[in-house]
Amino acid sequence: MHPDKLRALLDDVARGEASVDEAVEALKLLPFREIEGVATVDHHRHLRVGVPEVVFGLGKTAEEIAAIVAELAGTGANVLATRVDAGKAGAALAAVPAARYHERARCVTVEQQPFVDRGRGQVAVVTAGTSDLAVAEEALLTLRLYGHRAELVNDVGVAGVHRTLARLPALRAATVLLVVAGMEGALPSLVAGLVDRPVIAVPTSVGYGASLGGLAALLGMLTSCAAGVTVVNIDNGYGAACAAALINRKDS
Amino acid sequence: MHPDKLRALLDDVARGEASVDEAVEALKLLPFREIEGVATVDHHRHLRVGVPEVVFGLGKTAEEIAAIVAELAGTGANVLATRVDAGKAGAALAAVPAARYHERARCVTVEQQPFVDRGRGQVAVVTAGTSDLAVAEEALLTLRLYGHRAELVNDVGVAGVHRTLARLPALRAATVLLVVAGMEGALPSLVAGLVDRPVIAVPTSVGYGASLGGLAALLGMLTSCAAGVTVVNIDNGYGAACAAALINRKDS
Amino acid sequence: MHPDKLRALLDDVARGEASVDEAVEALKLLPFREIEGVATVDHHRHLRVGVPEVVFGLGKTAEEIAAIVAELAGTGANVLATRVDAGKAGAALAAVPAARYHERARCVTVEQQPFVDRGRGQVAVVTAGTSDLAVAEEALLTLRLYGHRAELVNDVGVAGVHRTLARLPALRAATVLLVVAGMEGALPSLVAGLVDRPVIAVPTSVGYGASLGGLAALLGMLTSCAAGVTVVNIDNGYGAACAAALINRKDS
Amino acid sequence: MHPDKLRALLDDVARGEASVDEAVEALKLLPFREIEGVATVDHHRHLRVGVPEVVFGLGKTAEEIAAIVAELAGTGANVLATRVDAGKAGAALAAVPAARYHERARCVTVEQQPFVDRGRGQVAVVTAGTSDLAVAEEALLTLRLYGHRAELVNDVGVAGVHRTLARLPALRAATVLLVVAGMEGALPSLVAGLVDRPVIAVPTSVGYGASLGGLAALLGMLTSCAAGVTVVNIDNGYGAACAAALINRKDS
Amino acid sequence: MHPDKLRALLDDVARGEASVDEAVEALKLLPFREIEGVATVDHHRHLRVGVPEVVFGLGKTAEEIAAIVAELAGTGANVLATRVDAGKAGAALAAVPAARYHERARCVTVEQQPFVDRGRGQVAVVTAGTSDLAVAEEALLTLRLYGHRAELVNDVGVAGVHRTLARLPALRAATVLLVVAGMEGALPSLVAGLVDRPVIAVPTSVGYGASLGGLAALLGMLTSCAAGVTVVNIDNGYGAACAAALINRKDS
Amino acid sequence: MHPDKLRALLDDVARGEASVDEAVEALKLLPFREIEGVATVDHHRHLRVGVPEVVFGLGKTAEEIAAIVAELAGTGANVLATRVDAGKAGAALAAVPAARYHERARCVTVEQQPFVDRGRGQVAVVTAGTSDLAVAEEALLTLRLYGHRAELVNDVGVAGVHRTLARLPALRAATVLLVVAGMEGALPSLVAGLVDRPVIAVPTSVGYGASLGGLAALLGMLTSCAAGVTVVNIDNGYGAACAAALINRKDS
Amino acid sequence: MHPDKLRALLDDVARGEASVDEAVEALKLLPFREIEGVATVDHHRHLRVGVPEVVFGLGKTAEEIAAIVAELAGTGANVLATRVDAGKAGAALAAVPAARYHERARCVTVEQQPFVDRGRGQVAVVTAGTSDLAVAEEALLTLRLYGHRAELVNDVGVAGVHRTLARLPALRAATVLLVVAGMEGALPSLVAGLVDRPVIAVPTSVGYGASLGGLAALLGMLTSCAAGVTVVNIDNGYGAACAAALINRKDS
Amino acid sequence: MHPDKLRALLDDVARGEASVDEAVEALKLLPFREIEGVATVDHHRHLRVGVPEVVFGLGKTAEEIAAIVAELAGTGANVLATRVDAGKAGAALAAVPAARYHERARCVTVEQQPFVDRGRGQVAVVTAGTSDLAVAEEALLTLRLYGHRAELVNDVGVAGVHRTLARLPALRAATVLLVVAGMEGALPSLVAGLVDRPVIAVPTSVGYGASLGGLAALLGMLTSCAAGVTVVNIDNGYGAACAAALINRKDS
Repeated sequence: MHPDKLRALLDDVARGEASVDEAVEALKLLPFREIEGVATVDHHRHLRVGVPEVVFGLGKTAEEIAAIVAELAGTGANVLATRVDAGKAGAALAAVPAARYHERARCVTVEQQPFVDRGRGQVAVVTAGTSDLAVAEEALLTLRLYGHRAELVNDVGVAGVHRTLARLPALRAATVLLVVAGMEGALPSLVAGLVDRPVIAVPTSVGYGASLGGLAALLGMLTSCAAGVTVVNIDNGYGAACAAALINRKDS
Repeated sequence: MHPDKLRALLDDVARGEASVDEAVEALKLLPFREIEGVATVDHHRHLRVGVPEVVFGLGKTAEEIAAIVAELAGTGANVLATRVDAGKAGAALAAVPAARYHERARCVTVEQQPFVDRGRGQVAVVTAGTSDLAVAEEALLTLRLYGHRAELVNDVGVAGVHRTLARLPALRAATVLLVVAGMEGALPSLVAGLVDRPVIAVPTSVGYGASLGGLAALLGMLTSCAAGVTVVNIDNGYGAACAAALINRKDS
Repeated sequence: MHPDKLRALLDDVARGEASVDEAVEALKLLPFREIEGVATVDHHRHLRVGVPEVVFGLGKTAEEIAAIVAELAGTGANVLATRVDAGKAGAALAAVPAARYHERARCVTVEQQPFVDRGRGQVAVVTAGTSDLAVAEEALLTLRLYGHRAELVNDVGVAGVHRTLARLPALRAATVLLVVAGMEGALPSLVAGLVDRPVIAVPTSVGYGASLGGLAALLGMLTSCAAGVTVVNIDNGYGAACAAALINRKDS
Repeated sequence: MHPDKLRALLDDVARGEASVDEAVEALKLLPFREIEGVATVDHHRHLRVGVPEVVFGLGKTAEEIAAIVAELAGTGANVLATRVDAGKAGAALAAVPAARYHERARCVTVEQQPFVDRGRGQVAVVTAGTSDLAVAEEALLTLRLYGHRAELVNDVGVAGVHRTLARLPALRAATVLLVVAGMEGALPSLVAGLVDRPVIAVPTSVGYGASLGGLAALLGMLTSCAAGVTVVNIDNGYGAACAAALINRKDS
Repeated sequence: MHPDKLRALLDDVARGEASVDEAVEALKLLPFREIEGVATVDHHRHLRVGVPEVVFGLGKTAEEIAAIVAELAGTGANVLATRVDAGKAGAALAAVPAARYHERARCVTVEQQPFVDRGRGQVAVVTAGTSDLAVAEEALLTLRLYGHRAELVNDVGVAGVHRTLARLPALRAATVLLVVAGMEGALPSLVAGLVDRPVIAVPTSVGYGASLGGLAALLGMLTSCAAGVTVVNIDNGYGAACAAALINRKDS
Repeated sequence: MHPDKLRALLDDVARGEASVDEAVEALKLLPFREIEGVATVDHHRHLRVGVPEVVFGLGKTAEEIAAIVAELAGTGANVLATRVDAGKAGAALAAVPAARYHERARCVTVEQQPFVDRGRGQVAVVTAGTSDLAVAEEALLTLRLYGHRAELVNDVGVAGVHRTLARLPALRAATVLLVVAGMEGALPSLVAGLVDRPVIAVPTSVGYGASLGGLAALLGMLTSCAAGVTVVNIDNGYGAACAAALINRKDS
Repeated sequence: MHPDKLRALLDDVARGEASVDEAVEALKLLPFREIEGVATVDHHRHLRVGVPEVVFGLGKTAEEIAAIVAELAGTGANVLATRVDAGKAGAALAAVPAARYHERARCVTVEQQPFVDRGRGQVAVVTAGTSDLAVAEEALLTLRLYGHRAELVNDVGVAGVHRTLARLPALRAATVLLVVAGMEGALPSLVAGLVDRPVIAVPTSVGYGASLGGLAALLGMLTSCAAGVTVVNIDNGYGAACAAALINRKDS
Repeated sequence: MHPDKLRALLDDVARGEASVDEAVEALKLLPFREIEGVATVDHHRHLRVGVPEVVFGLGKTAEEIAAIVAELAGTGANVLATRVDAGKAGAALAAVPAARYHERARCVTVEQQPFVDRGRGQVAVVTAGTSDLAVAEEALLTLRLYGHRAELVNDVGVAGVHRTLARLPALRAATVLLVVAGMEGALPSLVAGLVDRPVIAVPTSVGYGASLGGLAALLGMLTSCAAGVTVVNIDNGYGAACAAALINRKDS
């Protein structure tokens, strides 16, 4: 409950326009329903035009995804649905003409609000190899819908360090860097040694055998010899982009 | 090699003041010795007065730690030595009168430069329980020596959510939040739902049995249902503070 | 063998109405066939009308499930078949007209006995997110067939603590609480700090990457900072409901 | 804030005895400082005479433990300090004459309130072998201080099933059963098949090699073929006792 | 090379009936080709009529399996092909009229030699639940083809100990016992406490979640509190039967 | 209760020499105290002169071990105490003059009964390297006290296969083989390919890094390509010897 | 930049034929674009005729693979595409007439350059069983395309050591040995004890249960008791062949 | 048995100078005692002067180490004892005046044979950080005693890539490279991308938390994106040096 609404209610009581009983009734659920602040995060989301509504597609049917996307798109908001397999995207595209499917990123987007730059700078999304592109593109789509400019720096893994160095200007131009890598997950350490900015490491499940579905990359990133690297869950391009957006926010 | 220096050298060649052989000699090691940019990070460190020299104490003897701390302190810089057991700190304290030992954080510090605030705001260091204080204090010391104001919000674990809520103002006042928790590592999810700022989760090895030396907390944080949480290695207060410092930097 | 029956047999021997040979024959299998008490549990199950017969569907063919369900339903008992994939349910529904399939819970039920409340109170089945509903519904169906009233408290995960708090009355109204959560599995700790009742934590396999098929949630629940939380196997809604039923039993 | 206090405040506003500003000030911190119910659990603890104050000794120095125990004992409450190594107990015993050290359970207790039975019945604490006694005794001490009668059923592991059967009357007399076992952790399955009561399984770190510090027992208990068994963390006698106390509470 | 053959060769040399060159030629490959004893095991196999030829079907195509089975069956030997999925068995059945497919055990057998009892006694194959039957039947088929009588003791898991006790005579009648169990794998401990014979534990992948594909059962069996239990790989009914056959061999 | 004793009791009742009450009293505890068969194993142990009493020393104090050994030795039985560290053995040796400490095997033995050969043949205890001797010697001591002849075949690991082959006669002379190996645990596969007897594999914790405290050897043995190998827990020389004794028993 | 080119540029500056500005422009990108040496490896690859272009097929679509193979084959180079499932190979075969598919190895090759022997000797590719052939053939194809002669030594696992010994001449004839094994992965230890050459161990995912998808073999190889064995990732025939090619190179 | 010796024996038989019985006696142990080739490896070792005798110190007492070192040194050979803690080295130094202790490498060496270069070139031993020096020095000592020149390239981890590049000449000068790294183990990938030589990766246990005692580095190296990297066990400097020596051997 906004302080102004609280004050208005109390004014009504003071003026006799509301009975004490009515006020008690209105206030007693306050702590759980409308705690000012507790609910702020969600409220803010709706206030800030253009911030996307997000649907997590994993474990939902094509129909469920289509229904939710349609409902959210109906409000005029941008919509991002992640983890939508190609076979499931059709229903959403059929339901919402403005929807677009991004096959590699496995995302459905509905972009009906103009892009407004909310960032202090630009985010670099860096990949070790082209197999990491799926995760990188999920991050790029997320950043765009959240209002952050982002640049892809692709295929600069540690085994070809001259390629990494060749992209140094792009790496250094960023306010935040997402570094996406599978296999041994070594790229974030290399990049963090080349820039003076926050590096968010995103392990991918690219690899086989001892890569253990991305665990090798994850452990490698957590034990990085470069201080200041932080890590998100395997293949979590969306989460990494959210963290980058929070860091890059203009007003922060 | 700075472009100006390069230009000066070439001017000398153009003017005949330097022979081609001399210039070749000067330039041929350029890629590895003085690549502009590659080496920047380290150079910057030395240029920015007050940024501490850091010594990683694990696996070093008391004598080695004392010698390194003394040498670094001799340059007038602030010094931070982490992971120094109580039994090993004595030598450093004896060698450097200005040194101080922080028992819980297991750090030796030499603070001989005045505090200069390098942050855009303040960092909150939040713990789930008092057993997490050792890691939190390592982070607090690190932040201070890097020139960032920080506030401790202690003992606000999820099993007593009213305590967390009671500290909401402190949580919301921060630009970045480090959330330190052992056992199930649930606190970062709770905090990230209450603020709109970057949350860096620090798992600790507090717990026993199925906590697997901090792995349970680590996995919990990586799989947090709150998007935008990033994670560092177990007990890595120093690394988390570095990440927070990079995010909170005034000029970023 | 009940002491009275034993005494009667010995009386017969004493009176010469039974030969020693007959008595030896009657007694020698006693330890394994009729140990008083050892077999009680199963017998009790059949004596208490309405307690469901349970079929564990995993690894059984559609035909096997249908046959067992039909046989058990033929006795007039309620029947619960768990872990029945949608593709396998048809045979059972065809074989038993009264059977119903619950798609999300992957259960077949035959409810032909009236509901009799066997509980001291009501069980709360709490989920962190809607993805946990499948497991929650398995628990709800089980509780109902065992004769316990249950209420679903859905989607109150720790990252939106105001939603949890808003449902506090429902949480506090329960005698026992099942808390179902995937990802980091933090909800049981939060709930256990809000109520003074037994909390049974049910990890789910919801999540990906470092959630390791539910292991992250499982470890998180086992290392909960809230004393008194107990845990069942991943996705084990049935087992959790059985535990809740034993705790909530009227006569216990 | 209790509804009565809220009503009184509003009455004051209605009567003009409190200004709207004063009321706003009083109410705006309400959600976080005095949410009725949120803080109840802790308050209840202090209201119920005899419920012990608990100190978790792991990672605390002898002096810290002694100081906390002394402070708590000074309030007249019963005190339980768990995970106190023999070498650390002396300080607490010296500081508090009424304190007693239980070597096997590694607990310090101060029992200065008379025992009041808070249970509906009796708790059975069952062990697979004598090596599990340390954990069992921690549970027994905890139950006693929480006001629950408990009986030890020792050394009845599955490899000597006749010993288990011989103790059937004691098993059946209990309202709740804690079953403590290391190695393969099979005893809870056996016991749960013999009784119709809640069984809480406590894995212990007894064993070597493939017992993996208690993980084998833990996994065995989680996958028990006996429905309704719930599990706590390895060696967590205290937590199991808390769960049993919640289940056995007279008024629940 | 049999000593007699060696002696005959040397006699020929001594008599001049073989040249030294011929003898060197015959002897120089001796260590690798015909080491007496090294190759014995395989030779013995072919000498003992009725011992089956074994085909491991995993990773072979239907055609490969059919071809190998046909070739081996052509020698008149009994043939056992394990790990043959239902979809792959048809080719073998078509190729060899005498072949039979055992669906649950996933085995193809060709039994064209009369059963000859090679055992000192009878083997008991014990299961904890009916879900373990697939593995048990693989073991039963193997034992039969190796010439050992075996009896199935089904569904006697620890959670219904009266059922186990009721089958005690069958358990005690065996020379060796294979105990097949999934989930927590507790049955071998129970059985080993009831008999004085070798118990071979066979973990199965029955279960879910924390059963980790049979690892929980495997660890439970390895850490069994009953001394003398030995263990084979998960679902390895064939290997367990081989071990039992070696133990039960008449001439051993 | 032996059938003869049961018949005698009933005869007494039939003859009026025992009252029905007395008989009821004698019989009512029968299922749990004297179930014929259930308790047989333990009883047999005491009846068979020379079978050792076994004490598991891990987690017991020097005094506890000494007391138990002394009490058991007082009955005239042979005694075996395993897992007794050198520092703890002194008390037992002081208490029992006939006791002997075996440092490498970490066992205390009291051998006061003459050796009686209970085996059909001889057991081979084979090691991969001298570091495996501690576990092998525990097995040798156990076998001797259980009445089985055993021969050590030491240091014949797979990396020096000529050494293994050189000991082939000793390997082939055995009825059962215990094969003890750390590191990659490959020796049981090699040995099982050379003999036609039961092979029990004993992984040891010898090794470091990726040997994971013996897990690598354990997994290697479980996945042995040689059918018929069975496995015990890491370093479990005692358990392996028990299994070998059961297999080698003269009357089995 | 080659020193000669650098000298030429400086000569131009000295002679006034290039302006200082032009030279600065040419030199300033030098560190990242043309660092002499850093980029050498890639350049060398293109210079050495016949060295194959390699495509890693995992995670690529049939069309992507076909397109890349066609493009590379168009340069006249040999092409190797690994990890191409049978269902995906057709497109590449259709696109490139000279392409051949190797089903077991799951490789597509285009061999349009004559074989030139680049090795000092011959590589032995050794398998423990026929199930390891897929990985071995990937290695054989790779070696051939890299210009190294290789010989397959198949099915010589440790459980049939006489077969291994029979192939000793082939093992000893090699300069480098790749030893491919699943299950317990023991063969490299055996082979390394028989030869005095580098042994590269390749674990395969052959096996089930405790083989954990090849982890058991991997751990076994890493902990090999034979010094000098090195290991690659599970099923990584390609990587092992690359390592062997580097070792066997004529000019190394 | 050398063919010449075999021929001589047969000649004696042909000439009647040896009886057939004597020849049989001499030949019958041939397969196991003197298989030509099988035992070659060991024999070669003794024939090549200067190759060190190696003692693995782990798990041996100071006295055992001293005795073995003294005995081996008495033959005039060079001796290398690895894994000798500082506390255990004294006895060996006292027993053998020529012995030297290398504290960081934890090795005792006795070097009494002149260095003879057996290598085709030089081995580079590269470390990521100074904490990896202990393992690197064990490798350096081993290489020296085996007759291979080696150069240390220290502290060139990926987070400071300019330092790695600065040492490129040293990296490129080597025939083989050992790359020693803890934490995320990324250095071998970087180095393998810069050279065209065999790279052997040595993970170290340097790090904490998620480095899991070196497992993170090990997994990272196994999943290296640089083809051709092979890996040894954690901290296994000795084994890596053996592999390098086999690759670098002059005559290979």
